[in-house]
Amino acid sequence: MAGYVHEELPPEEISRQEGLYGPLAAAVRELADASIRTEADDEAIQAARKQVEAITARLRANQLEGSFGIRFNADGTARPWGNAVVGLRNPIAPPLEIKRDPAGKAWSDFRLGAAYEGPPGLVHGGVAALVLDQLLGEAAGAGGKPGMTGTLTLRYRRGTPLGDLHGEAAIDRVEGVKTFVLGSISDTDGVTVEAEGVFILPKWAREAVAKQQERFE
Amino acid sequence: MAGYVHEELPPEEISRQEGLYGPLAAAVRELADASIRTEADDEAIQAARKQVEAITARLRANQLEGSFGIRFNADGTARPWGNAVVGLRNPIAPPLEIKRDPAGKAWSDFRLGAAYEGPPGLVHGGVAALVLDQLLGEAAGAGGKPGMTGTLTLRYRRGTPLGDLHGEAAIDRVEGVKTFVLGSISDTDGVTVEAEGVFILPKWAREAVAKQQERFE
Repeated sequence: MAGYVHEELPPEEISRQEGLYGPLAAAVRELADASIRTEADDEAIQAARKQVEAITARLRANQLEGSFGIRFNADGTARPWGNAVVGLRNPIAPPLEIKRDPAGKAWSDFRLGAAYEGPPGLVHGGVAALVLDQLLGEAAGAGGKPGMTGTLTLRYRRGTPLGDLHGEAAIDRVEGVKTFVLGSISDTDGVTVEAEGVFILPKWAREAVAKQQERFE
Repeated sequence: MAGYVHEELPPEEISRQEGLYGPLAAAVRELADASIRTEADDEAIQAARKQVEAITARLRANQLEGSFGIRFNADGTARPWGNAVVGLRNPIAPPLEIKRDPAGKAWSDFRLGAAYEGPPGLVHGGVAALVLDQLLGEAAGAGGKPGMTGTLTLRYRRGTPLGDLHGEAAIDRVEGVKTFVLGSISDTDGVTVEAEGVFILPKWAREAVAKQQERFE
């Protein structure tokens, strides 16, 4: 069942799981790319489909009832391994490796291939939004202001080519429970998409933070 | 090479390709879901990874150099089969089956599973943006005002649960080359995310339209 789950794992067990699940997701990610681009003959494609179905059946013989959720250790280290942008176990995620700075910044160099296409040869505008939502949220979190997305505004300056890209985000200002974050995606010629996001700490989380502060008063 | 490619195919050939590539993408989509949720033992996962790598190698033996692009028949029927939201050949796409109305409306009932997760059990905010970008763009196109996304604004009212969802969009107004479109995603309890998008016809497309009009003057 998906949720924020406290699952205390020693570092070596986390490493073992990363080494097991990361390569599986990477392999399926490559297969997704190949499925879009293959020009193999009909028999080869039908055979591939049957083989994929057989692998899926074996993996599903023992599986989680719902989504992966987010698991964490008591030290706060989180494993959002099902996340659609950064999830280690998620073949749909590019996945982004995001660097964070406690000043409230986050950035990433990443590559988007054929599976992220919108207009021919260009990144789907919504995929740019997906990446930016994650980057802006991580910048808010890095600055000690984690929250859910309240509003997100994207300005598309020009098409973003598929290939190697850079994304970055930084907290612009904080007003009460709202954190305003600015960010962008760029290719080698400069910015292609700009974003502004407002992140809001959910009520239950605000209450938890308040309780924790009471303890120290 | 990705592009808008005129590739005239008879209906029966399109059907054949749909019947060949659709099921492959569907199978890889299921495999992606299983990769996130499996609790199979280490040997089973390592074996699955190797089998997936072998299938990918066979599919890649003969493949497109770049992304799929968009192919079309002379009658205007388009095949955006690599598209990240609606692409028949794209395992990353849910994929959405979008209904269109020439009044400038588009809607879809769709399902988002474990691969689209952000917060535990909830749709990633950026995935909601991805879906809405496509829906709003299709509404603009359905109303005879196709364009690239200029700006997109999302308002997140509450978390969108993974599972069965509904999305819809409609042209609000047209101002010169700009088409303003409104849309939303909802679950059984109502709207979870609202969107406003401004779509702009690229200059080259405006020139093509103008040329075509000259011919009739």
